[in-house]
This record gives sequence, structure tokens and C-alpha cells, in this order.
Amino acid sequence: MERQQLIFSNSVAAALDGAVAAINGVSSRFVLVDSNTERLVLPRLGASQAIAGARVITIPAGDEAKCLDTLAAVWNELQDGGATRSSLLINLGGGVVTDLGGFAAASFKRGIRFINVPTTLLAAVDAAVGGKTGINYRGMKNEIGAFAPACAVLLSTIFFDSLPATELRSGFAEMIKHAMLTGERDVDALLDFDLAAIDNERLLLLLRDSVAVKRRIVDEDPLEQGIRRALNLGHTAGHAFESLALERHRPVPHGYAVAWGLVVETVLSHLKLQFPSDALYRLASAIKELYGCAPVTCDDYPQLLHLMRHDKKSRHGEINCTLLRNYGDIAIDNAIDDDTLSAALDIYRDLSE
Amino acid sequence: MERQQLIFSNSVAAALDGAVAAINGVSSRFVLVDSNTERLVLPRLGASQAIAGARVITIPAGDEAKCLDTLAAVWNELQDGGATRSSLLINLGGGVVTDLGGFAAASFKRGIRFINVPTTLLAAVDAAVGGKTGINYRGMKNEIGAFAPACAVLLSTIFFDSLPATELRSGFAEMIKHAMLTGERDVDALLDFDLAAIDNERLLLLLRDSVAVKRRIVDEDPLEQGIRRALNLGHTAGHAFESLALERHRPVPHGYAVAWGLVVETVLSHLKLQFPSDALYRLASAIKELYGCAPVTCDDYPQLLHLMRHDKKSRHGEINCTLLRNYGDIAIDNAIDDDTLSAALDIYRDLSE
Repeated sequence: MERQQLIFSNSVAAALDGAVAAINGVSSRFVLVDSNTERLVLPRLGASQAIAGARVITIPAGDEAKCLDTLAAVWNELQDGGATRSSLLINLGGGVVTDLGGFAAASFKRGIRFINVPTTLLAAVDAAVGGKTGINYRGMKNEIGAFAPACAVLLSTIFFDSLPATELRSGFAEMIKHAMLTGERDVDALLDFDLAAIDNERLLLLLRDSVAVKRRIVDEDPLEQGIRRALNLGHTAGHAFESLALERHRPVPHGYAVAWGLVVETVLSHLKLQFPSDALYRLASAIKELYGCAPVTCDDYPQLLHLMRHDKKSRHGEINCTLLRNYGDIAIDNAIDDDTLSAALDIYRDLSE
Repeated sequence: MERQQLIFSNSVAAALDGAVAAINGVSSRFVLVDSNTERLVLPRLGASQAIAGARVITIPAGDEAKCLDTLAAVWNELQDGGATRSSLLINLGGGVVTDLGGFAAASFKRGIRFINVPTTLLAAVDAAVGGKTGINYRGMKNEIGAFAPACAVLLSTIFFDSLPATELRSGFAEMIKHAMLTGERDVDALLDFDLAAIDNERLLLLLRDSVAVKRRIVDEDPLEQGIRRALNLGHTAGHAFESLALERHRPVPHGYAVAWGLVVETVLSHLKLQFPSDALYRLASAIKELYGCAPVTCDDYPQLLHLMRHDKKSRHGEINCTLLRNYGDIAIDNAIDDDTLSAALDIYRDLSE
């Protein structure tokens, strides 16, 4: 797949206009927002020529909007607005806007060009690499979609102040994961960062490092056959926490579940691969401070194990994790037996008390 | 874009099984048919293992089925049938089945693999090269879709005997166009072919030559910036005939309109570029025999000219045609003034009387 051009800048209007000017033969421009980004983000881009001349398409905010009805509504607005094969769509919003908008563009007239401007930290880390677009369909996440690269992804941190703290922390968990795949210095840089009083320029640099890690791993293994599974770090246990919470009708944010999963899988790394205990303690303490503790007791272990065995990453009903010998020293495809996992969950709960 | 593997064979069951066996790691198979091909074609593939083990998805026959509702119905059947990212979809039918089925596969779980088995001559010539998939949407042809190559396209002539003669001739007009872009020998081979008593093996060879022409031109100009416009031969006048007939609620088959357009544009080639008159006479006579004459009088010229000026291939309101100095000697981008076009239409009508 073609590479997406990544632009890291907090001078968003100027950077966006530059990105649009660099695209040849654009006949007309459209900008996709949700009701939140229309109210909170669009007004802050008043200086952008690209936005000023664009027709605005607004979809409802929230995950439920990532559906076929909304997709068709976007197609309709493109059609009614006279979009041609040379039109450009600018997706300005969180993951729903960039995922759905990307697929709307990828499928309209067999593909028009689009630019992503993610406005949440999670969407920034997600949308920057990989070119995945799509919608949810009949209860399945991203069931309908395409791999389609944006012409450019404009990454900025200035919109994150409009987000609830929970949302920001969710994205931050993915960055911690990327740092853990790289080295101790990267992890320390993140854990030392003050999320309560954000330094935008510093966060932009951290975001750039984080995206670079993801890109390096995806480039190395585009077909997801080996090292790319490293990106699943924290997600085997994390998904189980997330699903359990959902079953109990007390959902937790995805990023929080991943953060808890990162600690559990680092405990496993310690038990199986001698991951150093001092680094584990420091991580567990930082995660506890930012994300609290997973709401589980030892009575939940059987159900958590069941969920992990049926995770799509597991094969032959065997629980399978990415582990670390140390930060940056990755071991994919570790089979984990039930006793070791139960022990790890015990230790995790001790560390998070 | 990736190239599609083309398989020319009239031993369809064996060729299909070979094509499926060549694809790695297929978890489950689905076959898409319409109500006609379910009845007329599917029973003739009883010897195919690939078909025997596949879940059949049936859509209504006809152009109206090439819509979002049908697309969603196919997604539903894939989902209900437990299709995974490793599933394979076999599209068995005319252009609606291959276009819609191709897009259903391209968009399900961000893309599953598919094989096209076109059962009409027009779909065979169309689907073999280019990888265009899509559906019609709110009155616009192929408004929603993607460029997505099939793993393989299996081209056979044995199903054409189930087609009405009109349908077969429609596809044949595209083959005549390809021959005209190649050379006199190729045109003669087609005009000498007896469509009333089809020799399947001979037609398969002619189809192979025809597809080779299209592939050569598309490969030379993948972005449709130059020589690929040669494939518009006959279509400027042809689309005008087709639109005029539609406006009058007396629609004509697309291929018939193209055939008439081929003669008009060859007359233009004679007037502007000295295309040889003997070859023109022979073509006009053969087309008249197969397709009759376009139902127009000189009173229709203003409307025909208007339609040609607003054809999507025209720029700045100027009528623009691909012409020939001789068979195989292509001149793209010829501006045509109204008087020359009226003269050409006069000559066309004289030749077709």
C-alpha cells in the first residue's frame, strides 16, 4: 500500500493549507465533522483557506454513528454537493470521523482523495499508520471497510484540550505500549509527562516518536505475519478486561483496559522471560496512578481465561501473548498456561492495590 | 494495481477448481449468482469441487439489482455464513454479479479474495481487465465502488448460448472496437465470425485477442491520461444515441449504440484523417447487418450534438473524439466542430440505409 504523508504541526491551519495545495488538480473540497468537532474544532480553523472554501458535512458524534446509515448520508452529501473524482475530503474528528470518512472517500466514485486531521490522541496514533478505514456493521466492529491511504495525515496536539481526561488517557495508553516496544528511555519520557498540564509541543514530539515506532513495525511486517503482532502487547489481557466489563454492563474505556493489560502482560514477561522487576514496579505504579485498577477479583479468573482463549489472536484455544524480555526486547507468540496466568493476575492485583 | 490472473478455458469446472486450489489458505467458499445464472449456469458446474463446497448467495437478475440494498444483502449472507478474512467469493454471472460481487468482496472485512467467472460476453470483456467494481447509487452508474483486482478471472464462452442474441451482439461490439484499435486483419476476423452458429473454441481465441488489446492499452496508461482514451472509440457518438433513445423512452442496448457510434466515428476519421473509404464501407455494411441503423433523423442532430458536448469525455463544451488514421493507427483528442459532425451523421445515415 502507498504510504501516507505524515505532517506533525501545531500550526494546523497553515499546515492543512499546505497539504491541500500540494495535491494536484483538486476540483472541490468537503470537510467531514461530527457535531462535537463542528462546534469545538472547526471554529479554530477559521484561518484555513482550504476549510473556508469547503462544503461542511456533519454527522452525529459517538460510536453509534459509525454505521451504514451515516456512511450513506455522507455519500449523499458528496453527491448533492457535486463531488467529482477530483474532489477532496478532509476528515476532521476522532476515530469515527477518520474511519468512516476514509471509507466514504475510498468508495465514492471508486475512490476520491482524502486528508485525515485526527482530533483525539487515540485517533492520531491509530489513523497515522496503516490506512485502515471502515464502519461497524450488524454488531461487528470494522466489518465493512477498505485499506485506503490518506493523501496526508495532519497530526497536531492542540485539539486535545477539548477532550475529556478519560479520552486523552485512552490514547496515551497506546503511546505507552509503543514506548515499551522501544526502550526504557522512551517509557520514562512518557511516564514523566504531566497529562494534567499538557505541554503541546512536548506532546507533539512524543506523538511523533510513538507513530514512528508503529510505522517501523508495520513496514517491517505489512501482512501481519510476525513482528507486527508485537502491537498486540497488552491487548490479550486488555480485551478480556474490556469484554468482561461489557458483559456486566459496566463498560470501561478501551485504553484503560489496554493499560491494565500492559501491566498483566509485563508480569507475565517477568514470570516467563525475567523481565526486570524494578521496571515492572515502576510501570505498575504509574499505570495505577493514571488508570486505577481493573475491577476484577479472583472469582473472575475463569471467565477472563475463557475470554483470552477465545480472543481472535489465540489459536487452537491456547492463550497467546506478546511478551518482553526487557523494554524493546520483544518476544512474540508465547503460549501461556492457565496457572501462570492466574499467578500473573494475582500479582497484578497485589501491585495495583 | 495488482494484475488479475486471466484463465481462458472452456473446461470451466476443472479450470475453476485449479484456480481455487492455487489460492493459499482459503477458509470457506461462497458463490454469488443471480436468479438466471442460478438456474442456467450453476447446474452446469456440478463437476466443480469448489462450487460443491460453497454456500450459494442469490441476488435478483437485472440492472435494478446493482444497488446498495443488494450489496447489503450479500454482506449479510457472508456474515451469516461465517465468512472470515480468509474466505473466497466466486462471482458467477453477468456484469451486475461481477461488479457488485467484486465490491462486496473488496469491502467485507476490508477485503476478502474473489474470483470472477463472467457468463456474458460483455462482462467477460469488461471484467477481464481493470479491476473496476461497484454499484449504482441514486441514479448514478458505478457511483459507489472500488478498484479491486480479482485473484483470477475465468473466461469461457460456453455459457453464452444461454444469452439472448441482443446480449451477445452487445458484447461483440466491444470486441469490434478492440479489433479496430489493432489492425485490419483483426477486424476482418471478427466480421467473418458467424454469431448465429457459434464455434465456442474459435470465439474463445477471439476473446483472448480482444482482452489482450484492452490489457495492453490499460497497462500503457493506467491513470487514463492518454492512450487509454482510445478505448472511448465509438462511445462519444454511441453515448449520444443511447441517451437520446432513453429520453424518448425507447432504450437501445449499450452495445448497439456503440456499434452505431463506431461507424459515425469512422466516418469522422475518414473526413478528418483520411481513414480509407473501402474499409469504412465494409464496416458500415457489417454493422448494419448485425445491429441495424440508429433510429435518428436530421431533426435529431441538435439534440445529439448537445448530448455529445456534455459527454463526460468532452472538455470546455467542445466535442472530443478518438479517431483512426487507419485500423490500429490511433489519434486521441480530436476536437470536432458541429458542421463536420452533422456531415458525418448524414454520411452515416446514407451508409446505413
